[in-house]
Amino acid sequence: MRIFLTLAAFFFAAPAMAEHHEAAPVTPVTIVIHGGAGALAPGRYSPEEEAAFRAKLNEALDAGYAVLESGGAALDAVEAAIVLMEDAPMFNAGKGAVFTRKGKNELDSSIMDGATLNAGAVAGVTRVKNPIKLARAVMEKSDHVMFARDGAEKFARENGLELVKPSYFKTEHRWKAYKRALKAEKENQKDAALFHDFKYGTVGAVALDAEGNLAAGTSTGGMMMKRYGRVGDTPIIGAGTFADNKSCAVSSTGWGEYFIRLTIARDICAQVEYQGKTVEEAADDVIHHRLQDMGADGGVIVLAPDGSYAMTFNSKGMFRGVKNAEEQIIAIYGEEE
Amino acid sequence: MRIFLTLAAFFFAAPAMAEHHEAAPVTPVTIVIHGGAGALAPGRYSPEEEAAFRAKLNEALDAGYAVLESGGAALDAVEAAIVLMEDAPMFNAGKGAVFTRKGKNELDSSIMDGATLNAGAVAGVTRVKNPIKLARAVMEKSDHVMFARDGAEKFARENGLELVKPSYFKTEHRWKAYKRALKAEKENQKDAALFHDFKYGTVGAVALDAEGNLAAGTSTGGMMMKRYGRVGDTPIIGAGTFADNKSCAVSSTGWGEYFIRLTIARDICAQVEYQGKTVEEAADDVIHHRLQDMGADGGVIVLAPDGSYAMTFNSKGMFRGVKNAEEQIIAIYGEEE
Repeated sequence: MRIFLTLAAFFFAAPAMAEHHEAAPVTPVTIVIHGGAGALAPGRYSPEEEAAFRAKLNEALDAGYAVLESGGAALDAVEAAIVLMEDAPMFNAGKGAVFTRKGKNELDSSIMDGATLNAGAVAGVTRVKNPIKLARAVMEKSDHVMFARDGAEKFARENGLELVKPSYFKTEHRWKAYKRALKAEKENQKDAALFHDFKYGTVGAVALDAEGNLAAGTSTGGMMMKRYGRVGDTPIIGAGTFADNKSCAVSSTGWGEYFIRLTIARDICAQVEYQGKTVEEAADDVIHHRLQDMGADGGVIVLAPDGSYAMTFNSKGMFRGVKNAEEQIIAIYGEEE
Repeated sequence: MRIFLTLAAFFFAAPAMAEHHEAAPVTPVTIVIHGGAGALAPGRYSPEEEAAFRAKLNEALDAGYAVLESGGAALDAVEAAIVLMEDAPMFNAGKGAVFTRKGKNELDSSIMDGATLNAGAVAGVTRVKNPIKLARAVMEKSDHVMFARDGAEKFARENGLELVKPSYFKTEHRWKAYKRALKAEKENQKDAALFHDFKYGTVGAVALDAEGNLAAGTSTGGMMMKRYGRVGDTPIIGAGTFADNKSCAVSSTGWGEYFIRLTIARDICAQVEYQGKTVEEAADDVIHHRLQDMGADGGVIVLAPDGSYAMTFNSKGMFRGVKNAEEQIIAIYGEEE
């Protein structure tokens, strides 16, 4: 409803904005981002921590929106926003990723172009500073969609991606959480809350550019304490990321295994494509019914070719934000917008 | 049309089969298999080779159908049929897999249960005799859906999967093809036909059991000369494999990158679920329009909860077969059924 009013305001307000109208882009350029869904309730973070989260989300929105406002491509906006969040230590992506059971940081990412359905994805890289850039390089510089682990690293080296020492990704905060989890495991504690919470923290963005093209991207350190080269939903096209100009663009965050089994990103766009649902209706069905009914949680950001969007989650909160010509919203907890 | 007539024959014939009727299963138990799609035209194989392919496809159908006929689960039928094809050196899965650019065999597989949406997948394993069994172990013995490469191997060792030396998978036929491809690459030949053809040979099965449950599974050696830990569509839930009792079960074979970008398996089931299409109509749209329009090729087998099925491809041929109470069909080339 809120979205409808926002759009209505946009159109009805047009005559009063006549002096800006000629310069306005053909499509309502928009970027929507998330920084992970999880057990986020007021009080979880100190005011300083919360302010830092909000500032970084605003920075990522601004970076992505600047690309769109200057006529840049949705893919570039998505990449710009995600790079900022990968570089920020507070999100579970790039620097600040959670640790695997062996005490390593293994990163996954994917990106998709709604105009061409081109896509790129990487799973389990350990030395690439910005996995979203590697996913894009896979999309643009190879004939393939997805590379994994040592192979993906080799492709990164051969294609000039910026490499860092594995220790670059380490933060004291995540290391302590890992040590606590190891201790809990050794003591055979079933500290579900501890593990559960660290399934989240993925970052993502969806964008609509002036040409009317959609794009989506997602990046993560995955699930804390993961083993066996576990691949979550983030690098899976149709689960963590999907974009098609015909329907919508989606980036997911949450309990990855359920997002894969439900092909969450594709299902939302399929409901838009085949049932004529709005992105909000489709996201509601998938998150509040299908995902909820399986006892899992998480969230999605979804953007349609007309600029309407949804930021939908069934966890307590989701770091999220949206920026278009009419509004710039940042929120963390439920019902905050 | 043929499917409709087959089903009609099944129902109209019921009175004449009254003495069998009580013992008949509640649902029309059915298994459909494929052994890969590609440039298969009559004359491609010697009569002896062709007979061997047909015999093995029949053997796989019989193995899967025997499970269903005795009241076994669709998942068990899918696994039984695929294990037989993995063990057969003529298919590009398990023994007889194609070689990577480094001269290795790296195997991918996935399986999905339409009743629960449980799923398991592995990418890039090199020592597990039957990757479909490992995919099932991931589904049943871990909290995860997908493991990759060295991690997946470790999980296999810890869970008692049968391991073999990497040389077990080698066949002289595939090794010679690999050597020719290496030579062509060195001489900078653009022998597209050679490479193109070896994108195929994946095996898969979909089954419907007496309880009305669907399952799907797929297994492959991937694309010949693949590099960088390339992951194709086979282990991607929604691309290579999908099963949901609400709509259909699908196993794919073909140019994997396009199957990922189009989320082929999920899209077929989404059209069934949201547009009320038959599996044949949905498969036609996805293979003959969406895939075709992108200039790619391959095929799918699709099975619905009512026993109707499709074996649809836009390549010259597809190794395929179906068995139910009414028929046992094996085919390789176009329009053969």
